Amino acid sequence: MLDAADPLASMKQRFALPQDLIYLDGNSLGPLPRVTSDVLADTANRQWGDRLIRSWNEGWIEAPQRIGAKIAPMIGAAPNEVIVGDSTSVNLFKLLVAALRIDPARRTIVSEQGNFPTDLHIAEGVIGCVPGASLKAVPRPDIACVLAGDTAVLLLAHVHYKTGARFDMKALTAAAHAVGAVVLWDLSHSIGAVPLDLTSAGVDLAVGCTYKYLNGGPGAPAFLYVAERWQERLTSPLSGWMGHAAPFAFADAYAPASGMTRWLAGTPPILTMAALEAGIDLWRDIDRDSVWAKSAALFDILSATGDSLGLECITPRDASARGSHIGFHHPHAYAITQALIARGVIGDFRNPDILRFGLTPLYLGHEDVWQAGEILRGIIATEAWRDPRFSKRLAVT
Amino acid sequence: MLDAADPLASMKQRFALPQDLIYLDGNSLGPLPRVTSDVLADTANRQWGDRLIRSWNEGWIEAPQRIGAKIAPMIGAAPNEVIVGDSTSVNLFKLLVAALRIDPARRTIVSEQGNFPTDLHIAEGVIGCVPGASLKAVPRPDIACVLAGDTAVLLLAHVHYKTGARFDMKALTAAAHAVGAVVLWDLSHSIGAVPLDLTSAGVDLAVGCTYKYLNGGPGAPAFLYVAERWQERLTSPLSGWMGHAAPFAFADAYAPASGMTRWLAGTPPILTMAALEAGIDLWRDIDRDSVWAKSAALFDILSATGDSLGLECITPRDASARGSHIGFHHPHAYAITQALIARGVIGDFRNPDILRFGLTPLYLGHEDVWQAGEILRGIIATEAWRDPRFSKRLAVT
Repeated sequence: MLDAADPLASMKQRFALPQDLIYLDGNSLGPLPRVTSDVLADTANRQWGDRLIRSWNEGWIEAPQRIGAKIAPMIGAAPNEVIVGDSTSVNLFKLLVAALRIDPARRTIVSEQGNFPTDLHIAEGVIGCVPGASLKAVPRPDIACVLAGDTAVLLLAHVHYKTGARFDMKALTAAAHAVGAVVLWDLSHSIGAVPLDLTSAGVDLAVGCTYKYLNGGPGAPAFLYVAERWQERLTSPLSGWMGHAAPFAFADAYAPASGMTRWLAGTPPILTMAALEAGIDLWRDIDRDSVWAKSAALFDILSATGDSLGLECITPRDASARGSHIGFHHPHAYAITQALIARGVIGDFRNPDILRFGLTPLYLGHEDVWQAGEILRGIIATEAWRDPRFSKRLAVT
Repeated sequence: MLDAADPLASMKQRFALPQDLIYLDGNSLGPLPRVTSDVLADTANRQWGDRLIRSWNEGWIEAPQRIGAKIAPMIGAAPNEVIVGDSTSVNLFKLLVAALRIDPARRTIVSEQGNFPTDLHIAEGVIGCVPGASLKAVPRPDIACVLAGDTAVLLLAHVHYKTGARFDMKALTAAAHAVGAVVLWDLSHSIGAVPLDLTSAGVDLAVGCTYKYLNGGPGAPAFLYVAERWQERLTSPLSGWMGHAAPFAFADAYAPASGMTRWLAGTPPILTMAALEAGIDLWRDIDRDSVWAKSAALFDILSATGDSLGLECITPRDASARGSHIGFHHPHAYAITQALIARGVIGDFRNPDILRFGLTPLYLGHEDVWQAGEILRGIIATEAWRDPRFSKRLAVT
C-alpha cells in the first residue's frame, strides 16, 4: 500500500538491479543506473574511439566544472562553488592544507574520534606538511568545547559512517566561526541522503563522495566545494597543470586558475566522469523532499523490526539527526551479514560488531525493506549465522 | 612493402580507429582498443550492475597492485615495485615530498626548465609543504652541473614532451647518486614508446601516464614506482585509508601498509582501471623490440618529408636519444595543425610554434605516415593553412 502511493516508485526501473536481491548497501556503493551503460558505451566508442583527442574540445575539458554545477543544487551551493575530481581523500588534503594557511597563528585541526578514518588519516598527513600544525580529535560531545583561538579548521564528517548520526551543520559551523576558525564538512554520507544547504549554514569548505547515494560508480571522482568568498584567497598544494590559469601555454611557473578550476591537479578521468554525470542527471527528475520523507519511512520499518528482535539500534530515532542508513549492534554482526547475503539481502558489517543497512529511497520499496527485516528475523531466530562458512573473513567487509 | 613485412601489422585491427583518419596523436591520447569496449561493458553491467558491492572481493580491491604488476615488465621493474592510482601530478607530489624527507640536510629539487609543466608546478606545491625546500630548474645542459650536496632529488621527464629528446637515464641516475641524491623519473612520454630498464639504471622513484602509449583511456590512472630498497623507508603525505595497513579495521591512527599499497589514497576508480588493464593486456602479445624498431622507421619517413620541405626538426636524429614522436618548428604551426585535421591527419600543436606528431607503431603503418607527410606537403605548398578558420584558437590545443 505504501509502495502504491510512493511518488518515487517508478525510479526503481531506472536501475539495473539484479532480480531476487534486496540491496541495502547503496550507502557504500550505489547501483548501476540503466542509462549509465549507454553513456559509458557512447563515451568509449564514439567520444574516445571515433572523436579521439578532438573530444577534449567537445565537452571533456569542462566536465569537472559542468558536473560540479549539477551537484551544487543538491548541497545548497552556487554552480560556481563546486568542482569534481580526484578522490575524497585527496580533496581533503588540498582543502586542509589551504585552510591551515589562512592564518599562521592558528595551527590546530579539530575533528571527531572514531568517524570515517580517511578524514583523520589525511589530517595526519596534512599536519606533516604545515609547520607547527596539529590534530586534535576528540569524542563527539567534546567537539564544541575544544574549539579555541588556535583552531584553524573544524573538520567533520556530517553523517557518521557507522551510527548514521548527523551533526547540526548550522550550529557547528557557527561554533567554528565564533572562534574565528573555518569549517570543512565531509558530505560523503549526506549528499543524496539528507537535505543540505551549505549557503544558509555559512559553510566555508566541503568535500564528498559520489559513489554512494549519487550512484556514480565504484571509485567515482569526488567533489570539492569552496564558498565563493574564499575562492581567490585559497590555493591548492597539489598545484598540477589542470589547475593552472593557462594550462596549454605550458609555462614553467604555476599560476592558479580563477574560481574552482585551481583545485584540479591532473587530467580528468573521463570514463568515470561520464558515469558520474549519468548518475547525477537522474536527480533532475526527482523530488528531493520525497526522498527525505521516504528515507524516514524506510527507517521506521527496519527500526521496528530491530526493536521486535531486541537489537540495539545505534542510529538516532530523530530523522533530522541522522542520515539514510541504520545500524544495530550484534555480537555476531559479521556472520549475520554473510548469512543475509546468502539469502539475497546485501547490507554490510562495520567493525567491530555493527550491522549496517542503507535505506536508499530511489530503488528500495517499503516492501523490500520489510522483507529484508523478515529475513533478518529468520536468521536470528534459527541462528543460521552459526554456519561456519559465514565466519570466513573477506578482504573487504 | 615495409607494411607487408611488418611484424606488428596485425595489431592495427585491435584498435577501433575511424576510417579515413591518420592518427598521429597517440602520444597525447592513445586510441580505443576494441577489447576495451567489451571490458568496460562487463565491468559496468556485470561487475557493478549484477555483483554490486561483492565485486570488491572479486578482483576490484587488488586492481591497483595487479595492474601495477603488469606495467612492471614494461619499465624493467619487479612486479611488487609498481602500483596504479591517482594522476601523474598527484603521484609526483607524493614521491617528491617523500624524497625530501629522506635527509633533512638536503633541501633542493633539481629539475629541467621548459619540460612538461606539471612536474615543475607540482614541485612548486611540494616546496611549500617541506620546510626549507627549494626548486632549482635549469636548462638541460646545466642539469648535471648543478647537482650538489644539498640536492635531495633529481626530477626529470625522461622524454621531452615537445622535442622528444630522451635523457640518458643511466648516466643521470648515476650523477644524482654520485652526490647522494635520489632520482625521480617521469616516464609519461617513455612507457610503451622506448625501452626502459629502471632496475639496471638503479632508478629510485618514477611515475608515468597511461593514456598515451598504453592506450588506457582519457585521464586513465597513472602509475608509481618505488625501488624495493626504498619501500619501507618512504611514506606518502597523502595518507588516505586505501594506503592503510588495515583499511577495514577503521582505526583512527594511520599506519602505512607494507610495500606499494601505502601509495594509494582514496578508493580506486574501477571503470578507468578496467579500461587501463585492457589496454595494458594488449602488450602481452607484442614484441617490444619490434615496436622500438618500427618507431625508428616511422621517424625516418616523416623526418625525410620534413627535410624535403625545409622544416627545422627539433627531435634528435639518433634513435637512442629520443622518444616516439617528432617535432618541427613552423611559424604557422597552429594553423597547419588545424588544416591537417581538416584533411584527416590528427597531430598536435605545442606552444609556441611546434608541429608535433606521435609515431605509434601499434596502429600506424609506414604508408600511413608517408601519406600524412604528403598531406602536410600539400598544405605547405598551397599555403592552405591561410584559411582563416584554421586560426581559430580552441580551448585545448
